[in-house]
Amino acid sequence: MPVLTKEFYLETEGETHIINITDYVQRIIKDCGLKDGIVCLFVPGSTGALTTIEYEPGLLKDLPRALEKIAPREAYYEHEKMWHDGNGHSHVRASIIGPCLTIPFVNGNLTLGTWQQIVFLELDVRARRRRIIVQIVGD
Amino acid sequence: MPVLTKEFYLETEGETHIINITDYVQRIIKDCGLKDGIVCLFVPGSTGALTTIEYEPGLLKDLPRALEKIAPREAYYEHEKMWHDGNGHSHVRASIIGPCLTIPFVNGNLTLGTWQQIVFLELDVRARRRRIIVQIVGD
Amino acid sequence: MPVLTKEFYLETEGETHIINITDYVQRIIKDCGLKDGIVCLFVPGSTGALTTIEYEPGLLKDLPRALEKIAPREAYYEHEKMWHDGNGHSHVRASIIGPCLTIPFVNGNLTLGTWQQIVFLELDVRARRRRIIVQIVGD
Repeated sequence: MPVLTKEFYLETEGETHIINITDYVQRIIKDCGLKDGIVCLFVPGSTGALTTIEYEPGLLKDLPRALEKIAPREAYYEHEKMWHDGNGHSHVRASIIGPCLTIPFVNGNLTLGTWQQIVFLELDVRARRRRIIVQIVGD
Repeated sequence: MPVLTKEFYLETEGETHIINITDYVQRIIKDCGLKDGIVCLFVPGSTGALTTIEYEPGLLKDLPRALEKIAPREAYYEHEKMWHDGNGHSHVRASIIGPCLTIPFVNGNLTLGTWQQIVFLELDVRARRRRIIVQIVGD
Repeated sequence: MPVLTKEFYLETEGETHIINITDYVQRIIKDCGLKDGIVCLFVPGSTGALTTIEYEPGLLKDLPRALEKIAPREAYYEHEKMWHDGNGHSHVRASIIGPCLTIPFVNGNLTLGTWQQIVFLELDVRARRRRIIVQIVGD
């Protein structure tokens, strides 16, 4: 059973840009020719996060609103003392959502629900180039 | 080292029904005969989530109360515009908790703490039939 | 491809003590001699959690403040009825952050971002001895 490590890049548009990465991941699984296994997704960086969601316009506004409640943009953050880059809330949100996802695939297909997509959340305050690691362990 | 994919079904009772699935997962590991490895749990669907908790009646009320703070049921959700199914908060909560868990097992036993159980959180507003994927990579 | 299971222990100082465990994990990967694979980190116990963060003094105060908003220490918890140990909020916070992380490594190196560290969050109200499971599947 091999381990395969792939990656792809995203150009984000800044704060709470939510990008559907399902097709990227599904294509990598198809291309690697493995049938069954685990795909481990990981974002290097402390102001981005990965999760799943039903990717429709309403929820792309609703999820950021909940994150604003947990860690409001305009609150005071100690992080500012060191960096003055206005993204203390971005770091806090990213630590709560988390940087990784693991998803089984079967017969070359992700086991997602019909209305469930894999998303990258840009939580930083500015546009970023993001690298997503896709590691596959399977048969 | 093989990859084994199993699944089981849950009949949930609706919003914030929290189901202890530890025994289902532990039994699958025992039955597969593998000694050491990773079990990857995944819920297909965007209004359910997986985590661990001490499964006692108090916390089964306390965790939903915290989720109500993060994404209140009675708040306005843009998701309503498209679907009118009253579960915008369910989606937001599920994206924050997340759809997957990975847990090591050693000598056929999950490495859970003494008071730590694996739970499925039904976050949707109605009773659902839920499929849980259990994928095992191990020796 | 082997599965290797290691562990290490932490002596925590009590509530919201955040410990950088990156070097522990990186050293275990180096010592095992595997090149590429997934490391699965897991904390046995229902009042601790794992995530990543930029490990600098400001954020070590900012993240606990967000957790205080989600599950305030002084709120009423049903968990108290059973245990009277004043850590209902600890359990709720731990269930939201989660007990596991999965991180790819490539050429023996964790694929973390430059400013991203792996941390254990002590969410219990008292100092604890904590065991962290490190399971590696790789080539």
